Amino acid sequence: MSQTIRILGIDPGLAATGWGVIDQTGTRLSLVAHGVIKAPVKAPLPERLEAIFAAVEALVAEYCPHEAAVEDQFVSANAGTALKLGQARAAAILPAARAGLSVSEYAPRLVKKSVVGTGAAEKGQVAAMIAVILPGSRATADAADALAVAVCHAHHRGIKTRLSA
Amino acid sequence: MSQTIRILGIDPGLAATGWGVIDQTGTRLSLVAHGVIKAPVKAPLPERLEAIFAAVEALVAEYCPHEAAVEDQFVSANAGTALKLGQARAAAILPAARAGLSVSEYAPRLVKKSVVGTGAAEKGQVAAMIAVILPGSRATADAADALAVAVCHAHHRGIKTRLSA
Repeated sequence: MSQTIRILGIDPGLAATGWGVIDQTGTRLSLVAHGVIKAPVKAPLPERLEAIFAAVEALVAEYCPHEAAVEDQFVSANAGTALKLGQARAAAILPAARAGLSVSEYAPRLVKKSVVGTGAAEKGQVAAMIAVILPGSRATADAADALAVAVCHAHHRGIKTRLSA
Repeated sequence: MSQTIRILGIDPGLAATGWGVIDQTGTRLSLVAHGVIKAPVKAPLPERLEAIFAAVEALVAEYCPHEAAVEDQFVSANAGTALKLGQARAAAILPAARAGLSVSEYAPRLVKKSVVGTGAAEKGQVAAMIAVILPGSRATADAADALAVAVCHAHHRGIKTRLSA
């Protein structure tokens, strides 16, 4: 019997951080849980980062994932936005890394290709395919993106080093 | 007798994060300690972030600062660099925020003005003035910048809301 690996996928953002937990047993994937972390929008930045950190820390404690995955994020032309996004990203990654989980990073195109079949897929297509791959997920866009990176990791873990995006 | 407030200043970076701890008693400032955290350069990003987080967490535990301060960082034109810097910044801020410290952010110009007297000061001038304000510091550039933001916070804490950079 195949071992079950539990994967936490994260889609970080300063306002909303999507998350999704899936189980992989052999080639079979099943949904465990998903959701969106909303950081207090008007709080000072350190408090917002702490809220994201605490929420992901609680997820790791509750669901005990074995591995984590995050998108190697698209960087917009705006450096100020990138600086903020980077901080949200670290706040989401750190609790997983500190819990001893490996945190794999995937290019957005590879995530889309893994889920939809093409790296040029639209956000809506990703959510639609996630609903097919993980029945019952009914995830919103942020959570669907997090489940998508978890699915991408499920497909590529173990053979990661032989692939390129 | 005035209360002594201990301030942790942080100058975050993905390769090197400067830090400095000072005590403020009334208008008197004194050096407690300073140094530079070097993250493992070739490690995957989550490991580098965790190294920064763990090092700052240890500093907070060792020196028990009451408040923390960090530069509201200059954002370069390069969004990729800003994303990385943002992650390092969050890794350095989070342990302080989680320990319940207020983390104040100061514009680089205000930090320079507080220490050198002009917002257009060069990096070398900041280090030279820090050596005067905090005798015995002999800080390298990264640590001097961290001490500078701690000094800036000492000058502005309590009246922060009435000032602008």
